[in-house]
Order: sequence, then C-alpha cells, then structure tokens
Amino acid sequence: MKEVIAVVRMDMMNRTKAALTSAGVDAFFAHEAQGRGKGFVNSSVLEGAESGYEEAAAVLGEKGKLYPKRMVTVVVGDDMVADVVEAITAVNRSGKPGDGKIFVLPINDAVRVRTGEKGAKSIA
Amino acid sequence: MKEVIAVVRMDMMNRTKAALTSAGVDAFFAHEAQGRGKGFVNSSVLEGAESGYEEAAAVLGEKGKLYPKRMVTVVVGDDMVADVVEAITAVNRSGKPGDGKIFVLPINDAVRVRTGEKGAKSIA
Amino acid sequence: MKEVIAVVRMDMMNRTKAALTSAGVDAFFAHEAQGRGKGFVNSSVLEGAESGYEEAAAVLGEKGKLYPKRMVTVVVGDDMVADVVEAITAVNRSGKPGDGKIFVLPINDAVRVRTGEKGAKSIA
Repeated sequence: MKEVIAVVRMDMMNRTKAALTSAGVDAFFAHEAQGRGKGFVNSSVLEGAESGYEEAAAVLGEKGKLYPKRMVTVVVGDDMVADVVEAITAVNRSGKPGDGKIFVLPINDAVRVRTGEKGAKSIA
Repeated sequence: MKEVIAVVRMDMMNRTKAALTSAGVDAFFAHEAQGRGKGFVNSSVLEGAESGYEEAAAVLGEKGKLYPKRMVTVVVGDDMVADVVEAITAVNRSGKPGDGKIFVLPINDAVRVRTGEKGAKSIA
Repeated sequence: MKEVIAVVRMDMMNRTKAALTSAGVDAFFAHEAQGRGKGFVNSSVLEGAESGYEEAAAVLGEKGKLYPKRMVTVVVGDDMVADVVEAITAVNRSGKPGDGKIFVLPINDAVRVRTGEKGAKSIA
C-alpha cells in the first residue's frame, strides 16, 4: 500500500480527479497548498539568503513567490502505483515549469472507520 | 514511531480531539481538506471519465462532489498506534458513508524544535 | 530520499523559507494548519476527557486551544536531511513552547511531472 501525493496547478484539479477515477481510484483527499519549484528561485535571492536572513526573507516572502497549488492525496495498492503516477502525469504535463510533483510514500496500514476494515480491504 | 492521519467529518473534530487526549496524545495538527470515498462515485461518472476527461471533469468537479473534511495528524510511538486508531474509530463510527479513513505511516525521526530532542523524547 | 515536514509559527515562514534556500532546498510546499503541543493541555481538561467526551470536547474545542501554524514540506536526498533539520531548527528555536516540530518520513519515489524524471533527478 502506498500514499501518492500530487502537487498540481489549481486549475488542473478537475482533470486530475477525472484521471484518477479513470485509473480506478475513487477515494481521494485534496488540500490547498502553496509551493515553489527549483526554477522559481533567482540567484540574487540565493545570495541574499547566504548573506543574511532578513533581506532574503523579505524577497522570498514577497507576494507571488509561492504559488497557490492543489495537493491531492490517494492511497492505493502497490500494484496501482505506476498507473496512478502515469495518469496524474499524463494530464498535468504541459512542459512548462509548475507542472508539479508526485511523491510516493510507504503506508503501514489503512482503516475504513465505518467498518473497521484494515489493509487492502479498507481501500478496495 | 508512526504518523497517524485521520480524515474525519468536520463536526467530529472536537470529539476526535478529546478521544486523542484520552488516549494519551496531547500534540496534534489539523488541516482542512476535501475528500471523497468510494461510495460517493456513481457509475455514469466513471463511464464518462473513461470516454473523455472533459465531460467527466465537469461532473466530478461539480460543487458538492468533494466533501469538506478535517484531517488530523498525530505522531506516536509504535506501542500507541493501536490505541490511537481504536480511539479515533470509536468516536467517528456512525456506520454511514463518510465516517472517514485512518492511515498509518512510518516515521524516521521527529524533532522538538524548542529543545532539539529527537526520537521518542521529542514526542513524549 | 526523505520528506521533511516542519510545523512552525505563522510568523516564522519567511525565515524558514530563507533558511531552506540557504541549505540548498529550492522546492517546497506550505500549508496552513492548526496545532497544539503537549504543553498546551491542562490537567483539568485531561480529567474531563477521561470522565466524558462532551465536557472535554467543549473545552478542547474552545477558540484558541488550537493555534494557527504553518506546515512546510520539502523532499530531499538522504544526505541533506541533517542539514535541513538543522537549518529549520536554528531559525525557529526561541526556547518557548510553540517552537514547533519536525518530522522525517521515508519516501519511495518522486516524479517531476514536467519531465517525467524520477528519484534523485526529480528533486535535483
């Protein structure tokens, strides 16, 4: 069992949800988040951060430096991870910076509260 | 050490917090989230998702399809995981769809910033 | 590869971002969260929680009992974890309750959606 966390553009949530459903994933959770990828940092800010926090913080903290994103979390069996990653990637890839990231984390267990089912049954 | 993440109904946060406190867990974090379990998906949407993203996205993206939830995260020792899962389950089980899910994830380490304590000491 | 999650004071986000940039981490995500550490719970609430959920819930649910926090998530190589933890700790430690917590979680894989790069390449 794995937790797959995808950070995607705000306006890609509906397509991402549909892609997940197509891939056989019906249960998922979404959060608002703010994020920034490597490409968004400019070198002068990096230098500022090295010479002192205050100045760099002022720049890094500027409105617009962190972009609003959506974070989607699903928990799936190991055999579905590749398909889910592929499905999310396929709909979110524009080739431009900001397409997002996908993380795959191990899960020890999952429980469906309504029934008490654990493990694979809880997410089936 | 494990991270226990529970996704519960909005109006169950207070009972969940009290149940965690009773189970001996004093430190926890809460987020707003939106979620959907398996039971909320109807088959026509699934078919739509298979025949084309746009139409399915329109339905899946409809207001009301994702339900507001609360996500509660705690980090506890391995010996407390079963009790914490039981405590959360006990107060959140109504037997109706939407009771929520609990996920248990491995944690490599935890640090209490104030003291620098790591591992079990950081969460004691 | 590890996921490092830091829960810090709201007003420490800019310094934390700058510290991460100095430590060589350019990509990160931030959420709003609410949290409470061990020190914030008083014993009468604990007793209340033991004698019955309703009363304790009323107290625990009081406005102000959960404090607004910021949760910052980064994914880095194993060799950077110690530096990242140190950097976050250094700027956030005031010695007062509420300085926050840092959690280190294992990651199985990461994917940069724009290029499809996986593993270490996806976060370089």
